[in-house]
Amino acid sequence: MHKNYHHSFKFLVRDYECDYQGVVNNAVYQNYLEHARNELFRSLGINFAKMHAQGKDVVITKVELNYKYPLRSCDEFVVKTRVTQQGKIRFVFEQDIFRLPDEKIILNATVTLVWLQSGRPALPAEFAAAFAKL
Amino acid sequence: MHKNYHHSFKFLVRDYECDYQGVVNNAVYQNYLEHARNELFRSLGINFAKMHAQGKDVVITKVELNYKYPLRSCDEFVVKTRVTQQGKIRFVFEQDIFRLPDEKIILNATVTLVWLQSGRPALPAEFAAAFAKL
Amino acid sequence: MHKNYHHSFKFLVRDYECDYQGVVNNAVYQNYLEHARNELFRSLGINFAKMHAQGKDVVITKVELNYKYPLRSCDEFVVKTRVTQQGKIRFVFEQDIFRLPDEKIILNATVTLVWLQSGRPALPAEFAAAFAKL
Amino acid sequence: MHKNYHHSFKFLVRDYECDYQGVVNNAVYQNYLEHARNELFRSLGINFAKMHAQGKDVVITKVELNYKYPLRSCDEFVVKTRVTQQGKIRFVFEQDIFRLPDEKIILNATVTLVWLQSGRPALPAEFAAAFAKL
Repeated sequence: MHKNYHHSFKFLVRDYECDYQGVVNNAVYQNYLEHARNELFRSLGINFAKMHAQGKDVVITKVELNYKYPLRSCDEFVVKTRVTQQGKIRFVFEQDIFRLPDEKIILNATVTLVWLQSGRPALPAEFAAAFAKL
Repeated sequence: MHKNYHHSFKFLVRDYECDYQGVVNNAVYQNYLEHARNELFRSLGINFAKMHAQGKDVVITKVELNYKYPLRSCDEFVVKTRVTQQGKIRFVFEQDIFRLPDEKIILNATVTLVWLQSGRPALPAEFAAAFAKL
Repeated sequence: MHKNYHHSFKFLVRDYECDYQGVVNNAVYQNYLEHARNELFRSLGINFAKMHAQGKDVVITKVELNYKYPLRSCDEFVVKTRVTQQGKIRFVFEQDIFRLPDEKIILNATVTLVWLQSGRPALPAEFAAAFAKL
Repeated sequence: MHKNYHHSFKFLVRDYECDYQGVVNNAVYQNYLEHARNELFRSLGINFAKMHAQGKDVVITKVELNYKYPLRSCDEFVVKTRVTQQGKIRFVFEQDIFRLPDEKIILNATVTLVWLQSGRPALPAEFAAAFAKL
């Protein structure tokens, strides 16, 4: 379960992310995972929104989420991420969420994405360079 | 309270819009109001997202929300909208939310927006034409 | 791909659901799927929020999302749902999203959930009765 | 504009908070303001979700938002908050958002809320004690 992660990012549950059950809504975990991926690559000099403005887009093709235990209001947690390349334009992110400080496992996720440039499969050079630094 | 509205649009509260208090989160009402404004102008042939792609943007400058009573899971409600022009590029939307079927008042809102073209104040001709049809 | 669905529910993409790429944000599809499940069971007399207030909770354990093509502002689409029981408390929802009117496939999803009563595995009688009506 | 604030809390814009215009969606600012209020009172030992479980609820009655300039992907910003009591159960939060590091004003807000206990107007003693510490 404890993989050789490339990146860790800490969050705090915000009240508006919790639903009527008093726990974080299932869809919100995808927001956390997306933001952790962005932080990983922001730390390597990549800004996905700026790349979009240049016609370079990340497109998610597959998401698998295994929910183990819910997060609640004001819980602190960490998203740990490991990323591997599969072929030319495909990257697979293994992302696990652990509650803090007890490190209880909350969620295991696998997110697959591909790179497009102007709508066609192509790996942007700056992303390839950033990934090589991991 | 019952103004001479230009448009009515019905919604149903979705569970994920409710927060840990079991009521619709305060921020979500702005989503409802925005969607009702979009539906009003969609019915007049205006698509804000397509206009954005042409450099024509609606920019909200002021929002006033008076919360009267909360909506809950599965409540049906209607957003009623009246819009008036103030000067060349400014439009004021009076938007009221009523629960259905009892018409209990839920929220009174006033939303002010201006039009920009390529970042400068200017009223797009197609919006002016649509507004004139009201 | 066209399964023997139990339920169909139509939606319209709302502008606030689209992100900086101009397409529906990946997490928002889970909101659509959740609402479609709620509508399916609402049509059978089940209100999940009311059941929560009685200590009866649906807990999602696994979500698989295969993104085929993005939805954009003002797209109309349908969520089609097929649900099967696996064991005593586990239900698997196969949910597919098709754009309208061209029926282009947008997303294939599989959502697994279990029932808890007061935190322990147990199938509420009213849900069993509703499911039997499918 | 620079008031005698009681509290400051820093945020980073997350990509999923931006809409098709490439800027933070107007409704999302209410999420930021809510979370900043929660952080202010969390620093004083108050957890609104736990108080809700005891029948003690904050209810927002009025929100005024003056949007000055938009936030974009990856912008850092601070929410500064000043809170005053009006009568027995009413509190008014003046909340301003400044972009960092240039301190450009983004939004001025005034949020009014009241306290209910079991649905009736009443100020919880623990909140009164926390407020007295400001």
